[in-house]
Amino acid sequence: MLVDLNSDVGESFGVYKYGSTEIIGFVSSINVACGMHAGDPMVMLKTVEMAGKNNVAIGAHPGYPDLIGFGRREFHMSKDELYAYTLYQIGSLYSFLRAKKLDMQHVKPHGSLYNKIAKDKDEAYAFLSAVRDFSKDLLVFLPPGSKSEEVALDIGLKVVREGFLDRAYNSDGSLVARNIPGAVLKDEDFVAKRAVDMIVNKSVKTIDNKTISVDFQTFCVHSDTPGAENFVKKLLKVFSDNNISIKSARDWV
Amino acid sequence: MLVDLNSDVGESFGVYKYGSTEIIGFVSSINVACGMHAGDPMVMLKTVEMAGKNNVAIGAHPGYPDLIGFGRREFHMSKDELYAYTLYQIGSLYSFLRAKKLDMQHVKPHGSLYNKIAKDKDEAYAFLSAVRDFSKDLLVFLPPGSKSEEVALDIGLKVVREGFLDRAYNSDGSLVARNIPGAVLKDEDFVAKRAVDMIVNKSVKTIDNKTISVDFQTFCVHSDTPGAENFVKKLLKVFSDNNISIKSARDWV
Amino acid sequence: MLVDLNSDVGESFGVYKYGSTEIIGFVSSINVACGMHAGDPMVMLKTVEMAGKNNVAIGAHPGYPDLIGFGRREFHMSKDELYAYTLYQIGSLYSFLRAKKLDMQHVKPHGSLYNKIAKDKDEAYAFLSAVRDFSKDLLVFLPPGSKSEEVALDIGLKVVREGFLDRAYNSDGSLVARNIPGAVLKDEDFVAKRAVDMIVNKSVKTIDNKTISVDFQTFCVHSDTPGAENFVKKLLKVFSDNNISIKSARDWV
Amino acid sequence: MLVDLNSDVGESFGVYKYGSTEIIGFVSSINVACGMHAGDPMVMLKTVEMAGKNNVAIGAHPGYPDLIGFGRREFHMSKDELYAYTLYQIGSLYSFLRAKKLDMQHVKPHGSLYNKIAKDKDEAYAFLSAVRDFSKDLLVFLPPGSKSEEVALDIGLKVVREGFLDRAYNSDGSLVARNIPGAVLKDEDFVAKRAVDMIVNKSVKTIDNKTISVDFQTFCVHSDTPGAENFVKKLLKVFSDNNISIKSARDWV
Repeated sequence: MLVDLNSDVGESFGVYKYGSTEIIGFVSSINVACGMHAGDPMVMLKTVEMAGKNNVAIGAHPGYPDLIGFGRREFHMSKDELYAYTLYQIGSLYSFLRAKKLDMQHVKPHGSLYNKIAKDKDEAYAFLSAVRDFSKDLLVFLPPGSKSEEVALDIGLKVVREGFLDRAYNSDGSLVARNIPGAVLKDEDFVAKRAVDMIVNKSVKTIDNKTISVDFQTFCVHSDTPGAENFVKKLLKVFSDNNISIKSARDWV
Repeated sequence: MLVDLNSDVGESFGVYKYGSTEIIGFVSSINVACGMHAGDPMVMLKTVEMAGKNNVAIGAHPGYPDLIGFGRREFHMSKDELYAYTLYQIGSLYSFLRAKKLDMQHVKPHGSLYNKIAKDKDEAYAFLSAVRDFSKDLLVFLPPGSKSEEVALDIGLKVVREGFLDRAYNSDGSLVARNIPGAVLKDEDFVAKRAVDMIVNKSVKTIDNKTISVDFQTFCVHSDTPGAENFVKKLLKVFSDNNISIKSARDWV
Repeated sequence: MLVDLNSDVGESFGVYKYGSTEIIGFVSSINVACGMHAGDPMVMLKTVEMAGKNNVAIGAHPGYPDLIGFGRREFHMSKDELYAYTLYQIGSLYSFLRAKKLDMQHVKPHGSLYNKIAKDKDEAYAFLSAVRDFSKDLLVFLPPGSKSEEVALDIGLKVVREGFLDRAYNSDGSLVARNIPGAVLKDEDFVAKRAVDMIVNKSVKTIDNKTISVDFQTFCVHSDTPGAENFVKKLLKVFSDNNISIKSARDWV
Repeated sequence: MLVDLNSDVGESFGVYKYGSTEIIGFVSSINVACGMHAGDPMVMLKTVEMAGKNNVAIGAHPGYPDLIGFGRREFHMSKDELYAYTLYQIGSLYSFLRAKKLDMQHVKPHGSLYNKIAKDKDEAYAFLSAVRDFSKDLLVFLPPGSKSEEVALDIGLKVVREGFLDRAYNSDGSLVARNIPGAVLKDEDFVAKRAVDMIVNKSVKTIDNKTISVDFQTFCVHSDTPGAENFVKKLLKVFSDNNISIKSARDWV
């Protein structure tokens, strides 16, 4: 059994450190911030160099131009602006990869943008057509069942279906909203066991105790929580015990 | 006789308009700001689209990350930072060109960065190695006789030698400092006549009335002075009367 | 008959010029941008100095921290953030006034923030409680009939009721949305005549041809449209012909 | 014996945490970043509220507008710009203090600006005349023997002489440059003992083993080093053992 593990990295800014960089050594794909919601050129350069050494697959992680909000709050741009800001960010990361003779595997939208295009086809098109216009060979990491997945497939992009390790699901396959009790799973052992279930049995128990089918290809692990690496190590051990191997999406999806 | 005419464009920002966009229709090369000292992704997108329609050669115009100073004041970064900021900016513009199936002809450093690397080999290397690491086929627009030209040639980049239409020269070929009387030439007819001389006779009269040899391949015309287009039209007429054709550097240098 | 005329000024940024500064000589109150949606410290200093020379009443013009959007698009902040950003901006302008021994007459929210707090009492409270906590003697320029006016009066602030010269009104006293035909009035003579009517007869004809009562104390004149000063001069002439004098709100409201 | 202990605080930005906030409970004066080199309005609001609860004296900590460089690198502005940026920052902090009915005790320039005005009288005048124009009652924290101290006294400002706990001194009373071996003192016990000496005996042993007279009134303790609070607790204990009390400068200088 194969699965991709991805993590958001390169989110430091100037003197400000954010998130673990060691996580790069444990995952198969990284999403690199491009200087709009987080990151700066020096952080990008160092992140790309570290990724090169660790032989991890690299993706661009465009977000809203909102450093103070870390790209996590709603942000209003026209479709043309979203298209332009997406190209800008993909190109800025591409430049470091090209200089270091590395490839770009994928693009994953960040934070509030990820959620927005999952629900709105026009916004999804603005974002995804920028990805396609840069290169139709780029994979896109998106939640299955979303509008963004639908648009991506429509315009010929290959989607890598992303699941959430520590979030409860509704019976329609959507995530339980964060403000509902039980939405965020805290028990690491349970989270790891549930992940194995999702990968091996392609099913998950919903918040209202039903069992639904799922078919995820990548999971995001946090780099910005205390003990992030320890959790990933534990997860990798549990995966290994269950014959699940971590592999970059480009190699098997 | 051939010469390239270049102009700095794409320097608007949000609601703020800066410089003429019509100039794009009159020159053979444009230098597009990349969002650090001027410009933003929407302005870059529109500028690139306009350049595509006008069939003008396009270059990146990286500058110091100093919007409030417009990249015109001294700015201190480490060599690594300069390398990273240069890659970031080149890539951001490249993305729009790639999406619109256009090529990048050249890179020209902006303002204070242009002057800094003309005098400092280490700074020049930081900047120019970023250009080369992106692509060794990119032309670089630099002042002849500068440290930056020397470094560029050393590392295998092709230099397009840039001259100044409205600035007086010293007898060693350097520009007369702006604060010295007579440094900036105001008489448009004289400027046009002098340009013809520099192109046809490869010589120019210095501020202290000597005649020195020059060999420029491109001249920068301002887009941000009142009547900018009118001056360029006049210049083109004088050039045409003297059998000088305007041609993008990539086609003949 | 007395009326206050106000204008948004100090909206330039670095090398970027925006709007007329001469308008300061014609109006009785100015709203000075505070560096978040427009303006910078140098622009604020020069604007305050010019205001001092022209003896015009000065107000702070806080907006959303969104330079690229000029504070004109929806922006999401928590109530605490809005409170903090409002205090920050008022204080920054106050500093220049204090240094130049000038008083702050009023605060007027900018653009999208003006519209948002007109409709939302919680947002209005976050903004207006910051104004009051700075000084309960500050006037606030707000649209009559709005939630923001209601909250301001509730918490003991004095409101100056603002009307729009070039916008059509609905019969409930609200503005006709910009996207509806006829919403923006273009005929300067008609606009001036209508203004006199609003001041002298305290009534205005609505877009559906009813006559409603209005009671405005200040009108905003644009500083960023071509010919802005000419329109203001024309308006002042018409006002003078009808015995209407322009006077800063602090002197008569 | 009395001494003031000050610390730079409020340097977080958006989601980015920087430095200890607990240090506010141990020192007698804090220097609050004003959003230009660090800090943002929300951070300022929370810092001021925490300061109010801890009854610590509050000062503004203006720096160069250089978030990515954290105000620690050389930065070029005109004198007028420095004057304007200083006023802007002082006013922005003042606003939070006024809203919370707290006083501003002092102003201390940050990082590269602190060092620049210590050596350049014109720059010092630009900065200090802004402080004075805001209020001639503000104390300024400056290094004794500096140009900035000289200018401050000249224009009637009261100076609080600042010493450095963990930096070696030259025999002329200046700091040993950081790049010289022995410039930064690492042994906490020695640093504490030396501090007592500087306070009680008003003397310090220089890097070349001479004993010179010093007369410091405040010392800066770091908030951004690991174990910052533990060092301060140790220092306070050593001070207490030697009958040295910590007291805000306004109460005794």
